[in-house]
Amino acid sequence: MELGIISLSDIQTDPATGKPFPYGQRLDEIISYATPADRRGLDVFALGEHHTLEFAVSSPAVVLAAIASRTSHIRLTSGVTVLPVLDPVRVYQDFATVDLISHGRAEITVGRSAFTEPFGIFGADLRDYDALFSEKLGLLLQLRDNDHVTWSGEFRPPLEHAPITPRAQQEPLPVWVGVGGSPESAERAGRLGLPMVLGYIGGPLDHARRAVDIYRAAGDRAGHSGKLCVGISTHFYAGATPEDARKVFPYYHEYLRPKTAGSSLARRSRAGGRCRRRPGAGR
Amino acid sequence: MELGIISLSDIQTDPATGKPFPYGQRLDEIISYATPADRRGLDVFALGEHHTLEFAVSSPAVVLAAIASRTSHIRLTSGVTVLPVLDPVRVYQDFATVDLISHGRAEITVGRSAFTEPFGIFGADLRDYDALFSEKLGLLLQLRDNDHVTWSGEFRPPLEHAPITPRAQQEPLPVWVGVGGSPESAERAGRLGLPMVLGYIGGPLDHARRAVDIYRAAGDRAGHSGKLCVGISTHFYAGATPEDARKVFPYYHEYLRPKTAGSSLARRSRAGGRCRRRPGAGR
Repeated sequence: MELGIISLSDIQTDPATGKPFPYGQRLDEIISYATPADRRGLDVFALGEHHTLEFAVSSPAVVLAAIASRTSHIRLTSGVTVLPVLDPVRVYQDFATVDLISHGRAEITVGRSAFTEPFGIFGADLRDYDALFSEKLGLLLQLRDNDHVTWSGEFRPPLEHAPITPRAQQEPLPVWVGVGGSPESAERAGRLGLPMVLGYIGGPLDHARRAVDIYRAAGDRAGHSGKLCVGISTHFYAGATPEDARKVFPYYHEYLRPKTAGSSLARRSRAGGRCRRRPGAGR
Repeated sequence: MELGIISLSDIQTDPATGKPFPYGQRLDEIISYATPADRRGLDVFALGEHHTLEFAVSSPAVVLAAIASRTSHIRLTSGVTVLPVLDPVRVYQDFATVDLISHGRAEITVGRSAFTEPFGIFGADLRDYDALFSEKLGLLLQLRDNDHVTWSGEFRPPLEHAPITPRAQQEPLPVWVGVGGSPESAERAGRLGLPMVLGYIGGPLDHARRAVDIYRAAGDRAGHSGKLCVGISTHFYAGATPEDARKVFPYYHEYLRPKTAGSSLARRSRAGGRCRRRPGAGR
């Protein structure tokens, strides 16, 4: 089992003043979490991507690059990259760059988005929610596996033997699928033989269990049993003592009031196989 | 006058083996240049953006973020961000994030691109070369100056009171225009009152002089005399001794053979005004 931290970078309101904390302070905090996480041996550090003013991180790859240059072991990933509204070419380029800077520690976790705002900002139609994700995930995997790509689809201009630079150090650069719990998403992740991470913010654990069962069954049917791997993220309090941890509660309460997602603990367990291959050599 | 370094991140061929250096090694080198540049008091570090396999950097903001977390004074910019093929929203988000991570040291240098490959990869029509740049530069300036943006144009889906996050620390985040020497580009930069940097790779210096004259005249006409600022980038050799500097030559010769651009020295001089405002407070 691997253990890590995920932050969604929400800008909390200071209960003392009623004002939001500054973006820069929030980013400094997030970057400062990664150093002890790396030193103490946590396995993974993940950052969410959001597109409203209540969040500090809209470009996780940029922040992960800053973290990469201060850490040496911890793996770095998004949670999640909002693939339906982004260009997979740019996503691959950004994370391949993080992979090179971190000497082979980057991963991409792609998802359909729990929010609707990104669709408005990037001009994607919510009615294409799933089709956008499906097509762009297919392209992302092609970009990851080939240094020249020929491709055509519905939602992005075609590529004709296009060179995609730089090439990641890891071969392949790990791509995880972030799943909120929908059966279709779990089935797709299993069918593609991709590792799956469940965002578990609340509600009965039965739903998570059901998604894992669907994922494994789809993976087994597609001949990917050896590659399946499951992660889950959930909230936690942290402090040096139980009293310290309790001091977090007013912030957490404030946080839960207007929104429905936040800092979480990520856990991954291997489900009958290695979660990732040994990092390959760079070009 | 300010002095800095720009790298275009070209992957050179090792004259000894005839093979290209690995991407990861090139990125490590580039990042390692920035630390002594910062410590010795250079003013600016710039990174090009390219989209063929002969270059290591396609996402300068990601690499600049890694540099930001290892430096404390030097300003960080692109050279150039290929705006015609990118989404200005994503460009603003990336560089606002670098600005926050670097505590107010980021700039964006936008240009039309000296290469045609990016147009193929990102599905932009070369016939719209200038119109794309003009429209997207206008949008970028709006995104920079407003935290909610309503906008419509020809080359990007419209924005309706869209929240753009995070907000940069500097108000405003500096936007420079990179100009290859074309009179129209110099005129536009002056008319908009934006600082201009000339890419001077070779040829008679008269052309650069002419571009500066056009820039200043246009800026004066538009009432921006106090804001005008000019930079220029050109090649240099560096070494602890003249002999050391001469050792660079075989690499430089190899580099000039297949391509026409590379590591350069950037110089900026103020033209009758301050190049940038004092960094503002973060949100």
